Amino acid sequence: MIDIAVIGAGRIGRIHATNLHLHSGANLRYIVDVSETAAAELAAHCDTQVGSLESVLGDATIQAVVIASSTNTHAELIEAAANAGKAIFCEKPLDLDVATAQKSLLVAEQQDVLLCVGFNRRHDPSFERVKEEIETGSVGDVEVVSITSRDPSPPPADYIARSGGLYKDMMIHDFDMGRWLLGEEPIEVFAFGSVLVDEKIRTAGDIDTAVATLRTESGRLCQITNSRRCSYGYDQRIEVFGSTGMARAGNQRETLVETASAAGYARDRALPFFLERYADAYRIQLDRFLRVVDGEELELPSGTDGLRALQIADAAQRSSDSGLPVSL
Amino acid sequence: MIDIAVIGAGRIGRIHATNLHLHSGANLRYIVDVSETAAAELAAHCDTQVGSLESVLGDATIQAVVIASSTNTHAELIEAAANAGKAIFCEKPLDLDVATAQKSLLVAEQQDVLLCVGFNRRHDPSFERVKEEIETGSVGDVEVVSITSRDPSPPPADYIARSGGLYKDMMIHDFDMGRWLLGEEPIEVFAFGSVLVDEKIRTAGDIDTAVATLRTESGRLCQITNSRRCSYGYDQRIEVFGSTGMARAGNQRETLVETASAAGYARDRALPFFLERYADAYRIQLDRFLRVVDGEELELPSGTDGLRALQIADAAQRSSDSGLPVSL
Amino acid sequence: MIDIAVIGAGRIGRIHATNLHLHSGANLRYIVDVSETAAAELAAHCDTQVGSLESVLGDATIQAVVIASSTNTHAELIEAAANAGKAIFCEKPLDLDVATAQKSLLVAEQQDVLLCVGFNRRHDPSFERVKEEIETGSVGDVEVVSITSRDPSPPPADYIARSGGLYKDMMIHDFDMGRWLLGEEPIEVFAFGSVLVDEKIRTAGDIDTAVATLRTESGRLCQITNSRRCSYGYDQRIEVFGSTGMARAGNQRETLVETASAAGYARDRALPFFLERYADAYRIQLDRFLRVVDGEELELPSGTDGLRALQIADAAQRSSDSGLPVSL
Amino acid sequence: MIDIAVIGAGRIGRIHATNLHLHSGANLRYIVDVSETAAAELAAHCDTQVGSLESVLGDATIQAVVIASSTNTHAELIEAAANAGKAIFCEKPLDLDVATAQKSLLVAEQQDVLLCVGFNRRHDPSFERVKEEIETGSVGDVEVVSITSRDPSPPPADYIARSGGLYKDMMIHDFDMGRWLLGEEPIEVFAFGSVLVDEKIRTAGDIDTAVATLRTESGRLCQITNSRRCSYGYDQRIEVFGSTGMARAGNQRETLVETASAAGYARDRALPFFLERYADAYRIQLDRFLRVVDGEELELPSGTDGLRALQIADAAQRSSDSGLPVSL
Repeated sequence: MIDIAVIGAGRIGRIHATNLHLHSGANLRYIVDVSETAAAELAAHCDTQVGSLESVLGDATIQAVVIASSTNTHAELIEAAANAGKAIFCEKPLDLDVATAQKSLLVAEQQDVLLCVGFNRRHDPSFERVKEEIETGSVGDVEVVSITSRDPSPPPADYIARSGGLYKDMMIHDFDMGRWLLGEEPIEVFAFGSVLVDEKIRTAGDIDTAVATLRTESGRLCQITNSRRCSYGYDQRIEVFGSTGMARAGNQRETLVETASAAGYARDRALPFFLERYADAYRIQLDRFLRVVDGEELELPSGTDGLRALQIADAAQRSSDSGLPVSL
Repeated sequence: MIDIAVIGAGRIGRIHATNLHLHSGANLRYIVDVSETAAAELAAHCDTQVGSLESVLGDATIQAVVIASSTNTHAELIEAAANAGKAIFCEKPLDLDVATAQKSLLVAEQQDVLLCVGFNRRHDPSFERVKEEIETGSVGDVEVVSITSRDPSPPPADYIARSGGLYKDMMIHDFDMGRWLLGEEPIEVFAFGSVLVDEKIRTAGDIDTAVATLRTESGRLCQITNSRRCSYGYDQRIEVFGSTGMARAGNQRETLVETASAAGYARDRALPFFLERYADAYRIQLDRFLRVVDGEELELPSGTDGLRALQIADAAQRSSDSGLPVSL
Repeated sequence: MIDIAVIGAGRIGRIHATNLHLHSGANLRYIVDVSETAAAELAAHCDTQVGSLESVLGDATIQAVVIASSTNTHAELIEAAANAGKAIFCEKPLDLDVATAQKSLLVAEQQDVLLCVGFNRRHDPSFERVKEEIETGSVGDVEVVSITSRDPSPPPADYIARSGGLYKDMMIHDFDMGRWLLGEEPIEVFAFGSVLVDEKIRTAGDIDTAVATLRTESGRLCQITNSRRCSYGYDQRIEVFGSTGMARAGNQRETLVETASAAGYARDRALPFFLERYADAYRIQLDRFLRVVDGEELELPSGTDGLRALQIADAAQRSSDSGLPVSL
Repeated sequence: MIDIAVIGAGRIGRIHATNLHLHSGANLRYIVDVSETAAAELAAHCDTQVGSLESVLGDATIQAVVIASSTNTHAELIEAAANAGKAIFCEKPLDLDVATAQKSLLVAEQQDVLLCVGFNRRHDPSFERVKEEIETGSVGDVEVVSITSRDPSPPPADYIARSGGLYKDMMIHDFDMGRWLLGEEPIEVFAFGSVLVDEKIRTAGDIDTAVATLRTESGRLCQITNSRRCSYGYDQRIEVFGSTGMARAGNQRETLVETASAAGYARDRALPFFLERYADAYRIQLDRFLRVVDGEELELPSGTDGLRALQIADAAQRSSDSGLPVSL
């Protein structure tokens, strides 16, 4: 039984807290949030208590923390939790600034604590099966990875403003998937960004539609396409093309039903958004984190994985701004 | 919060007990089983205690019971629970004998207790969507219902011997689905049964492969095909054909992955068996039962539904034995 | 180069004549029809001439005839062509009367001429692939064959009246497919027929919706479902379930396009009707007939195949009328 | 009836000559080739005669020519045919050199002859349906076009050497599709090329795997991925993502069959190569060309379309070589 606290009682914090509450191996001890009300509400929902950051980090019985607060607090919290000797699960991105993220990783490394980054998609059963197809050799040598990632609708303008931009906020997931599936480190990125969905996003200094290409030393390629709006649901697909085969994972629907009429055949839209699409992944992700805290050996997305994805996102932003490819 | 007991600690009892244990609106108070060991093991798994039938039925705080014991005890337990004034969820079939089943329903009716039969498939989200397509009119008038139901592998010979035969043990689910989807009562059944899978099943007096056809007064038709063995998993499909459209639900797979190679395109087998395929349905089914116990108005498969399916199964057996259609 | 004549210039005769006209191994010499106008029109379309039955059968250079006239003339024409020593391709059914059909086969046999029946579906590349899966063993022992066959809309009432009824006119194709895929001769048939589409069909003494079940000596089963009306196109599907696998062929669509929108995913309807769905099959069928006339050894649906399907259709009609299964 | 000649008796010339031979509106009068043997063989196959370039261009009854000779002769032949007043169908690419291609277009324009370029994919029924979905508005404003194009296996090394490279030889088709589907002119291209399939291709100065990105003035984007080798057949897919919907066309298979076994579900590979995949497109393409020669008004890929695709391919090559995006 792992004693654990959740820092951040927003949308993502709620997912993690609920999963920990239902997990037979976790003892969810505290909810921490800058808003006392939000913390209390979530604590009540999860049959646990509100705590302060100090009380959590000062409580020697707490073994691990989940950092799900706003991005600008991540680095600081990683350092504080590392200095308190806690195992850390931190939501992506580590920070919007590469140097700040690097500094926090250094502290975690110095304190020798576990640091796992919340790249939930690596834990999705379908994407994991694609990865297995690569590892068991059925795809052969990986050559081209294609990733499609489209949100159902754009976030509010004020979220955009403090999000760090599409590349660090949204495509960062795809950069991590790209690294994971390519099996080699990208050495160059090129990105085109456009505003096609909402002019308010341009006003906020961001884009809403983008494509990026990654290249590795040996010439493996990765294509990513992102949009902040998608009429048919949350569009999440990957395809890995290799020397002897291809493996791909498509969208999930609510049911298995197909209908037919004079208008043709019809099936459901894709699941609405990440809460539905990655419900299993979120659950599996925390379960694995708990198991590693408990001593099991499992590969989890590390602080370094978080940093590399952030570096690629940072470079993609520069490529998109300058119109030139950027070396990594 | 509904106080409830589970009678029967076998495979199905375990599913129900686990779902009740995890349900926030249920208070799973007792596990009852003829085997003290089985009851104790399941009670421990679900953080509850072992009870005797007498203690459960005599405990005025218990509002409902789940009957998941062996089929030959169902009717007797329904009567006892009804006489004790408990709401009853009973696994299918009610009994292997139509008259015995009828008698137990009469007691439940006289005592005016809720009696719900465990036709789990009615609660499967995909099948329910097919039903919705009918009710919203997109299929038009229902004309032909086609049901495919194949188990991955035959049960042990001793199970076959006391199962009541394929029609009452296995196809009874499809008879219920047929009634539900046809929207009219069948008035005639014709069945052909064969032994194609395992000669031991013939020795046990049963068949392992069967097709049946139902006809309603207005001429609506239903075709059912059953096999006790299926190489590609648990094959569970329905299709409803109507005057203006068709709706169908296919098999579920573990992941969304498709691969391709020189050998062609490949996808996963169907899910292995009912525990996986109907995990959601089992959960939803009990949730709805609890909600009805709690006063909500929801349509649930009733004792009468259980009886009608049993009557059709009984008639199908006679048709299969005699080689002649049987009126219902 | 085979010298050949087409008898019958209706819808089906036109398909055959056009295919012969485009075939590099055929010399389409004559079109014969009771309507001089129809014959002349089709002859012009195919760059050939109108002939009389006498001139065709009396022309020693004519090696083969295609009989595509109305059903009530088939038997007589088979006999005449056989007596003239011509190879014969005859459309289904041989006749509406089993004894009459048998008599014509006897003549063909006595004259030792090739007689091939137009069961076009056996030549459909997808259905043929299903047959190959059976023959190469990937399905294992065939256990259950399921056939769905639905026309887009009912034929005119006057066609119904002289069609011989749904079983002999429409389901006869499925009886042939069933025999072909079961790999064993059916020994019993049971059929339910309903009028659900159009009351005029009842007035004409026929049904428009039917299901039939076939059983072979060893217990293999076949389920067939037919409707005279289908909202989503011409519904033509087969599925063969066996001891180690399953093979199925679904409907064809005009394009490979899938669209998605807020309403969900959508694909084309099935192809409209047999002219489109079986265009390849019609072409392949005649090509094979010509090759056999030319001396090649190929298995083609024979007169006996035509007779057996007719016998099953006849029995199905009697089953449907009497409400009892009929032995074959 | 259009009197026409085919110049070039190689693989592509054979497709066109055969389609013309079977076309009821074409009178295929001559086959021209530098190899007298090749010309004679194809002429025999198509029941026509061998001609010289001079005889064809000097024959006033010849209305149109199909240029299917080697790429380095295209521009010269366009000019000669234009000067002779013939309508011209020319295979892609117009030339490997942009200036040369431009010069030939100028001649065609001055002589005011019809010049149509062989972008066969625009005539593929599935891709055309995607285009229709755009035009009828179901996709909304086009935002991102994704094109996957993979050959089954690399061409011989000597072909590579004179092919003009992957961008002009292979991806040129996708550049044309991109322009056609984007509905706006690309203003910038970026391409990454790799050698992952065969080192001999590197030796020949080319690449075998590439991704390219196009951007239009308004910010619409297009992603293309190419490989010279694909284990599962000829991989030809397009997807158009827009403000209100998505439309895509997948790969074609030989049959509609799906099988299932203990190993899972399986379907055929994609069709082997362009002869099979685009058989309909080749036929439709020439039919439309003939109809336009005959006076009908139809939009066909023009010389300008051929030039623009070549310019993009040329720019993509420079981008791939320099590692920098190139403006168009």
